[in-house]
Amino acid sequence: MTKTYRLHYAPDNASLIIRLALEELGLPYTCVLVDRAGAAHKSPAYLALNPNGLIPVLETPEGVMFETGAILLWLADRHGRLAPPVDSPERGDFLKWLFFVANTLHPALRMTFYPAQYVGDEPGAHLALRRHMQVEIARHLDALNRLAASGPAYFCASKASVLDLYLAPLLRWMVLYPAPEGGAGWFSLARWPHLRDMAIRLEQSPCVAAAIRAEGLNTAPFTAPEYANPPEGSAT
Amino acid sequence: MTKTYRLHYAPDNASLIIRLALEELGLPYTCVLVDRAGAAHKSPAYLALNPNGLIPVLETPEGVMFETGAILLWLADRHGRLAPPVDSPERGDFLKWLFFVANTLHPALRMTFYPAQYVGDEPGAHLALRRHMQVEIARHLDALNRLAASGPAYFCASKASVLDLYLAPLLRWMVLYPAPEGGAGWFSLARWPHLRDMAIRLEQSPCVAAAIRAEGLNTAPFTAPEYANPPEGSAT
Repeated sequence: MTKTYRLHYAPDNASLIIRLALEELGLPYTCVLVDRAGAAHKSPAYLALNPNGLIPVLETPEGVMFETGAILLWLADRHGRLAPPVDSPERGDFLKWLFFVANTLHPALRMTFYPAQYVGDEPGAHLALRRHMQVEIARHLDALNRLAASGPAYFCASKASVLDLYLAPLLRWMVLYPAPEGGAGWFSLARWPHLRDMAIRLEQSPCVAAAIRAEGLNTAPFTAPEYANPPEGSAT
Repeated sequence: MTKTYRLHYAPDNASLIIRLALEELGLPYTCVLVDRAGAAHKSPAYLALNPNGLIPVLETPEGVMFETGAILLWLADRHGRLAPPVDSPERGDFLKWLFFVANTLHPALRMTFYPAQYVGDEPGAHLALRRHMQVEIARHLDALNRLAASGPAYFCASKASVLDLYLAPLLRWMVLYPAPEGGAGWFSLARWPHLRDMAIRLEQSPCVAAAIRAEGLNTAPFTAPEYANPPEGSAT
Protein backbone atom coordinates (compact mmCIF):
# COMPACT_ATOMS: atom_id res chain seq x y z
CA MET A 1 0.00 0.00 0.00
CA THR A 2 1.27 3.47 -0.86
CA LYS A 3 2.43 5.67 2.05
CA THR A 4 1.22 8.81 0.34
CA TYR A 5 -1.29 9.53 -2.41
CA ARG A 6 -0.87 8.22 -5.96
CA LEU A 7 -3.28 9.55 -8.58
CA HIS A 8 -3.90 7.49 -11.71
CA TYR A 9 -4.83 10.14 -14.24
CA ALA A 10 -5.31 11.03 -17.87
CA PRO A 11 -5.03 14.72 -18.84
CA ASP A 12 -8.34 16.59 -18.72
CA ASN A 13 -10.22 13.50 -17.54
CA ALA A 14 -12.27 13.20 -14.33
CA SER A 15 -8.95 12.75 -12.53
CA LEU A 16 -8.54 16.53 -12.96
CA ILE A 17 -11.22 16.95 -10.27
CA ILE A 18 -9.21 14.86 -7.81
CA ARG A 19 -6.01 16.70 -8.68
CA LEU A 20 -7.72 19.98 -7.79
CA ALA A 21 -8.78 18.56 -4.43
CA LEU A 22 -5.30 17.19 -3.63
CA GLU A 23 -3.77 20.55 -4.56
CA GLU A 24 -6.33 22.57 -2.63
CA LEU A 25 -5.74 20.38 0.44
CA GLY A 26 -1.96 20.82 0.02
CA LEU A 27 -1.35 17.07 0.07
CA PRO A 28 1.78 15.46 -1.38
CA TYR A 29 0.98 13.07 -4.22
CA THR A 30 2.52 11.37 -7.23
CA CYS A 31 0.89 10.77 -10.59
CA VAL A 32 0.67 7.72 -12.82
CA LEU A 33 -0.36 8.43 -16.41
CA VAL A 34 -3.12 6.17 -17.71
CA ASP A 35 -2.55 5.78 -21.45
CA ARG A 36 -6.11 6.13 -22.70
CA ALA A 37 -5.06 5.90 -26.35
CA GLY A 38 -3.60 2.46 -25.52
CA ALA A 39 -6.72 1.53 -23.48
CA ALA A 40 -4.57 1.16 -20.37
CA HIS A 41 -7.69 1.71 -18.22
CA LYS A 42 -9.01 -1.62 -19.51
CA SER A 43 -5.77 -3.53 -18.75
CA PRO A 44 -5.74 -6.26 -16.05
CA ALA A 45 -3.39 -4.16 -13.90
CA TYR A 46 -5.77 -1.19 -13.95
CA LEU A 47 -8.89 -3.32 -13.51
CA ALA A 48 -7.28 -4.73 -10.37
CA LEU A 49 -7.38 -1.19 -8.99
CA ASN A 50 -10.83 -0.29 -10.35
CA PRO A 51 -12.86 -3.23 -11.69
CA ASN A 52 -15.10 -0.73 -13.47
CA GLY A 53 -12.20 0.49 -15.62
CA LEU A 54 -12.85 4.18 -15.08
CA ILE A 55 -10.48 7.06 -14.41
CA PRO A 56 -9.61 8.26 -11.74
CA VAL A 57 -8.12 5.89 -9.22
CA LEU A 58 -6.50 7.28 -6.09
CA GLU A 59 -4.21 5.00 -4.12
CA THR A 60 -4.18 6.05 -0.48
CA PRO A 61 -2.44 4.87 2.70
CA GLU A 62 -5.76 3.21 3.59
CA GLY A 63 -6.43 1.50 0.27
CA VAL A 64 -7.49 2.10 -3.30
CA MET A 65 -10.25 4.61 -3.97
CA PHE A 66 -12.34 5.18 -7.09
CA GLU A 67 -15.53 7.07 -7.97
CA THR A 68 -14.97 10.81 -8.19
CA GLY A 69 -17.68 11.75 -5.68
CA ALA A 70 -16.54 9.14 -3.16
CA ILE A 71 -12.91 10.25 -3.37
CA LEU A 72 -13.87 13.92 -2.89
CA LEU A 73 -16.01 13.13 0.14
CA TRP A 74 -13.41 10.82 1.67
CA LEU A 75 -10.57 13.34 1.19
CA ALA A 76 -12.66 16.17 2.65
CA ASP A 77 -13.57 14.10 5.70
CA ARG A 78 -10.05 12.72 6.25
CA HIS A 79 -8.50 16.18 6.12
CA GLY A 80 -11.31 18.18 7.73
CA ARG A 81 -11.63 20.74 4.93
CA LEU A 82 -13.61 21.55 1.76
CA ALA A 83 -16.92 20.11 3.02
CA PRO A 84 -19.19 20.50 6.07
CA PRO A 85 -18.09 17.96 8.72
CA VAL A 86 -20.33 15.03 9.63
CA ASP A 87 -21.83 16.78 12.67
CA SER A 88 -22.53 20.05 10.80
CA PRO A 89 -26.16 21.11 10.27
CA GLU A 90 -25.22 21.75 6.61
CA ARG A 91 -23.97 18.20 6.11
CA GLY A 92 -27.29 16.87 4.80
CA ASP A 93 -27.67 19.67 2.27
CA PHE A 94 -24.11 19.22 1.12
CA LEU A 95 -24.52 15.46 0.70
CA LYS A 96 -27.73 15.69 -1.27
CA TRP A 97 -26.17 18.05 -3.83
CA LEU A 98 -22.92 16.10 -3.98
CA PHE A 99 -24.89 12.97 -4.81
CA PHE A 100 -26.98 14.93 -7.29
CA VAL A 101 -23.88 16.07 -9.16
CA ALA A 102 -22.37 12.58 -8.98
CA ASN A 103 -25.39 10.57 -10.06
CA THR A 104 -27.38 12.95 -12.25
CA LEU A 105 -25.30 15.79 -13.71
CA HIS A 106 -22.03 13.91 -14.20
CA PRO A 107 -23.67 10.82 -15.80
CA ALA A 108 -25.77 13.09 -18.03
CA LEU A 109 -22.55 14.64 -19.30
CA ARG A 110 -20.95 11.23 -19.82
CA MET A 111 -23.97 10.25 -21.94
CA THR A 112 -23.32 13.17 -24.28
CA PHE A 113 -19.62 12.23 -24.52
CA TYR A 114 -19.97 8.48 -24.89
CA PRO A 115 -23.45 7.72 -26.27
CA ALA A 116 -22.30 4.32 -27.58
CA GLN A 117 -21.77 3.21 -23.97
CA TYR A 118 -25.50 3.72 -23.40
CA VAL A 119 -27.33 2.98 -26.64
CA GLY A 120 -24.79 0.97 -28.66
CA ASP A 121 -23.98 1.73 -32.27
CA GLU A 122 -27.16 3.26 -33.67
CA PRO A 123 -26.33 6.84 -34.80
CA GLY A 124 -29.96 8.01 -34.56
CA ALA A 125 -30.05 6.92 -30.95
CA HIS A 126 -26.78 8.77 -30.28
CA LEU A 127 -28.29 12.01 -31.50
CA ALA A 128 -31.52 11.45 -29.57
CA LEU A 129 -29.61 10.77 -26.35
CA ARG A 130 -27.26 13.71 -26.79
CA ARG A 131 -29.96 16.25 -27.60
CA HIS A 132 -32.21 15.11 -24.80
CA MET A 133 -29.46 15.07 -22.19
CA GLN A 134 -28.22 18.53 -23.13
CA VAL A 135 -31.68 19.87 -22.26
CA GLU A 136 -31.56 17.93 -19.00
CA ILE A 137 -28.09 19.26 -18.17
CA ALA A 138 -29.27 22.84 -18.63
CA ARG A 139 -32.15 22.13 -16.24
CA HIS A 140 -29.73 20.67 -13.69
CA LEU A 141 -27.53 23.77 -13.96
CA ASP A 142 -30.62 25.93 -13.39
CA ALA A 143 -31.16 24.05 -10.12
CA LEU A 144 -27.53 24.44 -9.08
CA ASN A 145 -27.55 28.15 -9.93
CA ARG A 146 -30.63 28.60 -7.73
CA LEU A 147 -28.87 26.68 -4.95
CA ALA A 148 -25.85 28.97 -5.25
CA ALA A 149 -28.12 32.03 -5.17
CA SER A 150 -29.48 30.85 -1.80
CA GLY A 151 -25.99 31.33 -0.33
CA PRO A 152 -24.89 28.04 1.24
CA ALA A 153 -21.38 27.93 2.77
CA TYR A 154 -20.58 24.69 0.92
CA PHE A 155 -21.19 25.79 -2.67
CA CYS A 156 -20.08 28.80 -4.73
CA ALA A 157 -19.05 30.59 -1.51
CA SER A 158 -15.87 32.58 -0.81
CA LYS A 159 -13.95 29.41 0.17
CA ALA A 160 -13.87 26.58 -2.36
CA SER A 161 -15.55 23.27 -1.51
CA VAL A 162 -15.26 19.85 -3.12
CA LEU A 163 -18.60 20.58 -4.75
CA ASP A 164 -17.07 23.60 -6.52
CA LEU A 165 -14.03 21.56 -7.50
CA TYR A 166 -16.36 18.91 -8.94
CA LEU A 167 -18.56 21.29 -10.90
CA ALA A 168 -15.99 23.62 -12.47
CA PRO A 169 -14.34 20.96 -14.68
CA LEU A 170 -17.80 19.70 -15.71
CA LEU A 171 -18.57 23.23 -16.95
CA ARG A 172 -15.34 23.13 -18.95
CA TRP A 173 -16.16 19.81 -20.58
CA MET A 174 -19.66 20.94 -21.54
CA VAL A 175 -18.02 23.43 -23.91
CA LEU A 176 -15.31 21.12 -25.28
CA TYR A 177 -17.13 17.81 -25.70
CA PRO A 178 -18.56 16.30 -27.79
CA ALA A 179 -16.53 17.73 -30.62
CA PRO A 180 -16.53 18.74 -33.34
CA GLU A 181 -19.85 17.52 -34.78
CA GLY A 182 -21.82 18.19 -31.60
CA GLY A 183 -20.70 21.71 -30.86
CA ALA A 184 -21.45 23.72 -27.74
CA GLY A 185 -24.10 26.01 -29.20
CA TRP A 186 -26.52 24.70 -26.57
CA PHE A 187 -24.29 25.85 -23.71
CA SER A 188 -23.67 29.39 -22.47
CA LEU A 189 -22.22 29.88 -19.01
CA ALA A 190 -23.73 33.40 -18.87
CA ARG A 191 -27.09 31.73 -18.23
CA TRP A 192 -25.83 30.60 -14.80
CA PRO A 193 -24.09 33.66 -13.31
CA HIS A 194 -23.52 32.20 -9.84
CA LEU A 195 -21.79 29.16 -11.32
CA ARG A 196 -19.77 31.40 -13.65
CA ASP A 197 -18.65 33.60 -10.74
CA MET A 198 -17.52 30.54 -8.81
CA ALA A 199 -15.56 29.31 -11.83
CA ILE A 200 -13.89 32.73 -12.22
CA ARG A 201 -12.87 32.77 -8.54
CA LEU A 202 -11.51 29.26 -8.81
CA GLU A 203 -9.44 30.16 -11.89
CA GLN A 204 -7.45 32.54 -9.69
CA SER A 205 -6.55 29.87 -7.16
CA PRO A 206 -3.19 28.05 -6.80
CA CYS A 207 -4.85 24.62 -7.19
CA VAL A 208 -5.98 25.53 -10.70
CA ALA A 209 -2.58 27.00 -11.56
CA ALA A 210 -1.02 23.66 -10.61
CA ALA A 211 -3.52 21.75 -12.74
CA ILE A 212 -2.89 24.06 -15.70
CA ARG A 213 0.83 23.29 -15.50
CA ALA A 214 0.40 19.55 -14.97
CA GLU A 215 -2.23 18.89 -17.63
CA GLY A 216 -1.52 21.61 -20.20
CA LEU A 217 -4.76 23.56 -19.76
CA ASN A 218 -5.27 27.13 -20.94
CA THR A 219 -5.36 30.00 -18.45
CA ALA A 220 -9.16 30.29 -18.08
CA PRO A 221 -9.91 26.57 -18.23
CA PHE A 222 -13.48 26.78 -16.88
CA THR A 223 -14.87 30.01 -18.33
CA ALA A 224 -13.08 30.11 -21.70
CA PRO A 225 -11.85 26.55 -22.19
CA GLU A 226 -9.59 25.39 -24.99
CA TYR A 227 -8.44 21.84 -25.71
CA ALA A 228 -5.64 20.67 -23.45
CA ASN A 229 -2.08 20.45 -24.72
CA PRO A 230 -0.70 18.09 -22.10
CA PRO A 231 3.00 17.39 -21.47
CA GLU A 232 2.23 13.63 -21.51
CA GLY A 233 -0.70 11.43 -22.51
CA SER A 234 -3.95 12.38 -24.20
CA ALA A 235 -7.40 13.47 -23.07
CA THR A 236 -9.30 10.99 -25.19
CA MET B 1 -39.21 21.98 10.36
CA THR B 2 -40.40 18.53 11.41
CA LYS B 3 -39.34 17.29 14.88
CA THR B 4 -39.14 13.71 13.69
CA TYR B 5 -38.76 12.07 10.28
CA ARG B 6 -41.36 12.45 7.56
CA LEU B 7 -40.95 10.27 4.46
CA HIS B 8 -42.57 11.37 1.22
CA TYR B 9 -43.15 8.10 -0.57
CA ALA B 10 -44.91 6.23 -3.33
CA PRO B 11 -45.37 2.48 -2.95
CA ASP B 12 -42.52 0.41 -4.38
CA ASN B 13 -40.59 3.51 -5.44
CA ALA B 14 -37.04 4.44 -4.36
CA SER B 15 -38.62 5.65 -1.10
CA LEU B 16 -38.85 1.94 -0.19
CA ILE B 17 -35.06 1.99 0.29
CA ILE B 18 -35.33 4.83 2.81
CA ARG B 19 -38.21 3.12 4.59
CA LEU B 20 -36.03 0.04 5.08
CA ALA B 21 -33.26 2.20 6.58
CA LEU B 22 -35.65 4.03 8.93
CA GLU B 23 -37.11 0.71 10.06
CA GLU B 24 -33.72 -0.98 10.46
CA LEU B 25 -32.53 1.99 12.55
CA GLY B 26 -35.73 1.81 14.64
CA LEU B 27 -36.52 5.48 14.07
CA PRO B 28 -40.01 6.92 14.47
CA TYR B 29 -41.34 8.41 11.23
CA THR B 30 -44.52 9.38 9.49
CA CYS B 31 -45.36 8.96 5.82
CA VAL B 32 -46.83 11.29 3.23
CA LEU B 33 -48.15 9.58 0.11
CA VAL B 34 -46.97 11.16 -3.14
CA ASP B 35 -49.72 10.62 -5.70
CA ARG B 36 -47.66 9.63 -8.73
CA ALA B 37 -50.75 8.98 -10.86
CA GLY B 38 -51.69 12.63 -10.25
CA ALA B 39 -48.09 13.78 -10.86
CA ALA B 40 -47.89 15.13 -7.31
CA HIS B 41 -44.09 14.88 -7.48
CA LYS B 42 -44.16 17.63 -10.13
CA SER B 43 -46.40 19.96 -8.06
CA PRO B 44 -45.04 23.28 -6.74
CA ALA B 45 -45.37 22.02 -3.15
CA TYR B 46 -43.25 18.95 -3.86
CA LEU B 47 -40.74 20.84 -5.99
CA ALA B 48 -40.22 23.17 -3.02
CA LEU B 49 -38.97 20.11 -1.13
CA ASN B 50 -36.99 18.58 -4.03
CA PRO B 51 -36.48 20.87 -7.04
CA ASN B 52 -35.58 17.80 -9.09
CA GLY B 53 -39.07 16.34 -8.62
CA LEU B 54 -37.89 12.88 -7.63
CA ILE B 55 -39.08 10.48 -4.94
CA PRO B 56 -38.03 10.11 -2.11
CA VAL B 57 -37.88 13.18 0.08
CA LEU B 58 -37.11 12.80 3.78
CA GLU B 59 -37.93 15.72 6.06
CA THR B 60 -35.64 15.66 9.08
CA PRO B 61 -35.16 17.78 12.22
CA GLU B 62 -32.16 19.32 10.40
CA GLY B 63 -33.83 20.04 7.07
CA VAL B 64 -35.10 18.42 3.91
CA MET B 65 -33.11 15.58 2.38
CA PHE B 66 -33.33 14.04 -1.09
CA GLU B 67 -31.18 11.70 -3.22
CA THR B 68 -31.41 8.10 -2.05
CA GLY B 69 -27.67 7.61 -1.57
CA ALA B 70 -27.26 10.87 0.33
CA ILE B 71 -30.15 10.07 2.68
CA LEU B 72 -28.76 6.60 3.41
CA LEU B 73 -25.30 7.95 4.16
CA TRP B 74 -26.62 10.80 6.29
CA LEU B 75 -28.92 8.51 8.32
CA ALA B 76 -26.12 5.99 8.89
CA ASP B 77 -23.73 8.70 10.06
CA ARG B 78 -26.30 10.46 12.26
CA HIS B 79 -27.28 7.27 14.03
CA GLY B 80 -23.91 5.51 14.02
CA ARG B 81 -25.10 2.29 12.40
CA LEU B 82 -25.41 0.50 9.04
CA ALA B 83 -22.17 1.90 7.58
CA PRO B 84 -18.49 2.14 8.58
CA PRO B 85 -17.99 5.37 10.57
CA VAL B 86 -15.93 8.22 9.12
CA ASP B 87 -12.74 7.18 10.95
CA SER B 88 -13.02 3.50 9.97
CA PRO B 89 -10.40 2.01 7.63
CA GLU B 90 -13.32 0.52 5.63
CA ARG B 91 -14.92 3.92 5.09
CA GLY B 92 -13.24 4.53 1.73
CA ASP B 93 -14.22 1.15 0.33
CA PHE B 94 -17.77 1.61 1.52
CA LEU B 95 -18.04 5.08 -0.02
CA LYS B 96 -16.71 4.05 -3.41
CA TRP B 97 -19.27 1.27 -3.73
CA LEU B 98 -22.10 3.40 -2.37
CA PHE B 99 -21.34 6.02 -5.02
CA PHE B 100 -21.03 3.29 -7.65
CA VAL B 101 -24.50 1.98 -6.85
CA ALA B 102 -25.91 5.53 -6.69
CA ASN B 103 -24.37 6.90 -9.86
CA THR B 104 -23.93 3.87 -12.10
CA LEU B 105 -26.20 0.95 -11.19
CA HIS B 106 -29.24 2.92 -10.04
CA PRO B 107 -29.19 5.34 -13.04
CA ALA B 108 -28.73 2.38 -15.41
CA LEU B 109 -31.87 0.85 -13.98
CA ARG B 110 -33.77 4.13 -14.30
CA MET B 111 -32.79 4.27 -17.98
CA THR B 112 -34.45 0.91 -18.57
CA PHE B 113 -37.60 2.07 -16.73
CA TYR B 114 -37.89 5.56 -18.21
CA PRO B 115 -36.06 5.62 -21.56
CA ALA B 116 -38.07 8.64 -22.72
CA GLN B 117 -36.39 10.70 -19.98
CA TYR B 118 -33.06 10.03 -21.69
CA VAL B 119 -33.68 9.74 -25.43
CA GLY B 120 -37.09 11.37 -25.92
CA ASP B 121 -39.86 9.77 -27.93
CA GLU B 122 -38.07 7.64 -30.50
CA PRO B 123 -39.07 3.97 -29.93
CA GLY B 124 -35.97 2.58 -31.66
CA ALA B 125 -33.79 4.56 -29.29
CA HIS B 126 -35.81 3.25 -26.32
CA LEU B 127 -35.07 -0.31 -27.30
CA ALA B 128 -31.39 0.43 -27.97
CA LEU B 129 -30.99 2.09 -24.58
CA ARG B 130 -32.82 -0.64 -22.70
CA ARG B 131 -30.96 -3.54 -24.29
CA HIS B 132 -27.59 -1.92 -23.88
CA MET B 133 -28.16 -0.96 -20.25
CA GLN B 134 -29.38 -4.42 -19.29
CA VAL B 135 -26.02 -5.78 -20.41
CA GLU B 136 -24.29 -3.05 -18.39
CA ILE B 137 -26.39 -3.80 -15.32
CA ALA B 138 -25.43 -7.47 -15.46
CA ARG B 139 -21.78 -6.42 -15.61
CA HIS B 140 -22.25 -4.14 -12.60
CA LEU B 141 -23.86 -6.99 -10.66
CA ASP B 142 -20.88 -9.20 -11.55
CA ALA B 143 -18.62 -6.57 -9.92
CA LEU B 144 -20.82 -6.36 -6.83
CA ASN B 145 -20.98 -10.14 -6.51
CA ARG B 146 -17.16 -10.29 -6.62
CA LEU B 147 -17.04 -7.56 -3.98
CA ALA B 148 -19.39 -9.57 -1.76
CA ALA B 149 -17.27 -12.70 -2.29
CA SER B 150 -14.26 -10.81 -0.90
CA GLY B 151 -16.06 -10.57 2.45
CA PRO B 152 -16.27 -6.90 3.45
CA ALA B 153 -18.09 -6.08 6.69
CA TYR B 154 -20.17 -3.38 4.98
CA PHE B 155 -21.77 -5.43 2.18
CA CYS B 156 -23.63 -8.75 2.11
CA ALA B 157 -22.32 -9.54 5.61
CA SER B 158 -24.21 -10.96 8.59
CA LYS B 159 -25.41 -7.50 9.68
CA ALA B 160 -27.29 -5.44 7.09
CA SER B 161 -25.73 -2.18 5.84
CA VAL B 162 -27.26 0.70 3.94
CA LEU B 163 -25.55 -0.72 0.85
CA ASP B 164 -27.56 -3.95 1.25
CA LEU B 165 -30.75 -1.95 1.84
CA TYR B 166 -30.02 0.01 -1.34
CA LEU B 167 -29.26 -2.99 -3.54
CA ALA B 168 -32.04 -5.42 -2.53
CA PRO B 169 -34.94 -3.28 -3.88
CA LEU B 170 -32.96 -2.65 -7.08
CA LEU B 171 -32.77 -6.44 -7.56
CA ARG B 172 -36.55 -6.57 -7.11
CA TRP B 173 -37.19 -3.88 -9.69
CA MET B 174 -34.94 -5.52 -12.25
CA VAL B 175 -37.44 -8.38 -12.39
CA LEU B 176 -40.62 -6.28 -12.35
CA TYR B 177 -39.75 -3.36 -14.64
CA PRO B 178 -40.05 -2.59 -17.44
CA ALA B 179 -43.22 -4.56 -17.96
CA PRO B 180 -44.77 -6.22 -19.78
CA GLU B 181 -43.12 -5.67 -23.18
CA GLY B 182 -39.57 -5.64 -21.78
CA GLY B 183 -39.73 -8.76 -19.66
CA ALA B 184 -37.09 -9.96 -17.23
CA GLY B 185 -35.69 -12.77 -19.36
CA TRP B 186 -32.30 -11.05 -19.22
CA PHE B 187 -32.19 -11.23 -15.42
CA SER B 188 -31.57 -14.25 -13.20
CA LEU B 189 -30.57 -13.70 -9.59
CA ALA B 190 -28.95 -17.16 -9.50
CA ARG B 191 -26.08 -15.69 -11.53
CA TRP B 192 -25.07 -13.60 -8.49
CA PRO B 193 -25.26 -16.01 -5.50
CA HIS B 194 -23.73 -13.65 -2.93
CA LEU B 195 -26.27 -10.97 -3.78
CA ARG B 196 -29.07 -13.54 -3.70
CA ASP B 197 -27.99 -14.80 -0.27
CA MET B 198 -27.96 -11.25 1.08
CA ALA B 199 -31.47 -10.68 -0.31
CA ILE B 200 -32.69 -13.92 1.29
CA ARG B 201 -31.26 -12.91 4.69
CA LEU B 202 -32.81 -9.48 4.41
CA GLU B 203 -36.23 -10.95 3.60
CA GLN B 204 -36.23 -12.49 7.09
CA SER B 205 -35.67 -9.18 8.83
CA PRO B 206 -38.24 -7.04 10.66
CA CYS B 207 -37.49 -4.01 8.48
CA VAL B 208 -38.66 -5.87 5.39
CA ALA B 209 -41.74 -7.22 7.21
CA ALA B 210 -42.69 -3.62 8.01
CA ALA B 211 -42.18 -2.56 4.39
CA ILE B 212 -44.28 -5.49 3.14
CA ARG B 213 -47.16 -4.36 5.36
CA ALA B 214 -46.85 -0.67 4.55
CA GLU B 215 -46.46 -0.97 0.78
CA GLY B 216 -48.35 -4.18 -0.03
CA LEU B 217 -45.35 -6.24 -1.14
CA ASN B 218 -45.32 -10.03 -1.42
CA THR B 219 -43.47 -12.15 1.14
CA ALA B 220 -40.24 -12.68 -0.83
CA PRO B 221 -40.06 -9.21 -2.36
CA PHE B 222 -36.42 -9.38 -3.48
CA THR B 223 -35.91 -12.99 -4.57
CA ALA B 224 -39.38 -13.79 -5.98
CA PRO B 225 -40.97 -10.38 -6.53
CA GLU B 226 -44.56 -9.79 -7.55
CA TYR B 227 -46.21 -6.47 -8.30
CA ALA B 228 -47.17 -4.51 -5.21
CA ASN B 229 -50.76 -4.29 -4.05
CA PRO B 230 -50.44 -1.22 -1.86
CA PRO B 231 -53.04 -0.06 0.69
CA GLU B 232 -52.80 3.46 -0.79
CA GLY B 233 -51.33 5.06 -3.90
CA SER B 234 -49.72 3.43 -6.91
CA ALA B 235 -46.20 2.37 -7.87
CA THR B 236 -46.24 4.05 -11.28
